[in-house]
Amino acid sequence: MSQPVHLVILITTRPGRGGDQIAAFERLAPIVRAEPGCLRYDLHQVTGEPDRFVLVERWSSEAALAAHDVTPHMTEADAASPAFRAGPAEVIRLDAAPLA
Amino acid sequence: MSQPVHLVILITTRPGRGGDQIAAFERLAPIVRAEPGCLRYDLHQVTGEPDRFVLVERWSSEAALAAHDVTPHMTEADAASPAFRAGPAEVIRLDAAPLA
Repeated sequence: MSQPVHLVILITTRPGRGGDQIAAFERLAPIVRAEPGCLRYDLHQVTGEPDRFVLVERWSSEAALAAHDVTPHMTEADAASPAFRAGPAEVIRLDAAPLA
Repeated sequence: MSQPVHLVILITTRPGRGGDQIAAFERLAPIVRAEPGCLRYDLHQVTGEPDRFVLVERWSSEAALAAHDVTPHMTEADAASPAFRAGPAEVIRLDAAPLA
């Protein structure tokens, strides 16, 4: 049986562009959350740092994540985000089951 | 009413010392999870990187986190961890409520 996939993604926007990240997420979130296998898709603001965010994703399987990555809305979002992001997001993939 | 506190903590051990981090966490986790106000205290391995971890903490309030930070078991753990960690953990504090 396939394992869930857990991602923690660190995002930094260009100075003063955090609002663009939030707006993009607000458009995207309901679409992504409706995708098959999406268990969690939450963007958190880093406290007191308006240009830093952590996106937490959880998918039911590798296949669900792979399908998500090539959806038209993600292709479009990936093309748009460099305009307001300071650099590529840092994607940290975690073993889904916590230790201990 | 006080807000919950949500932390994502990036940990890197010295090369080959990931096992020490896991052992330390296994000793600490049941004690921390029993502290007042501890809502989550989970260590995840970064997939395929035996020396990298992400600790996810959620506390009911700032006061609960502040009390946790000065417990004898945390003081002891903080003194022991530099022996096996590559550097200080990177603590990212998140606004507890996700955006959108």
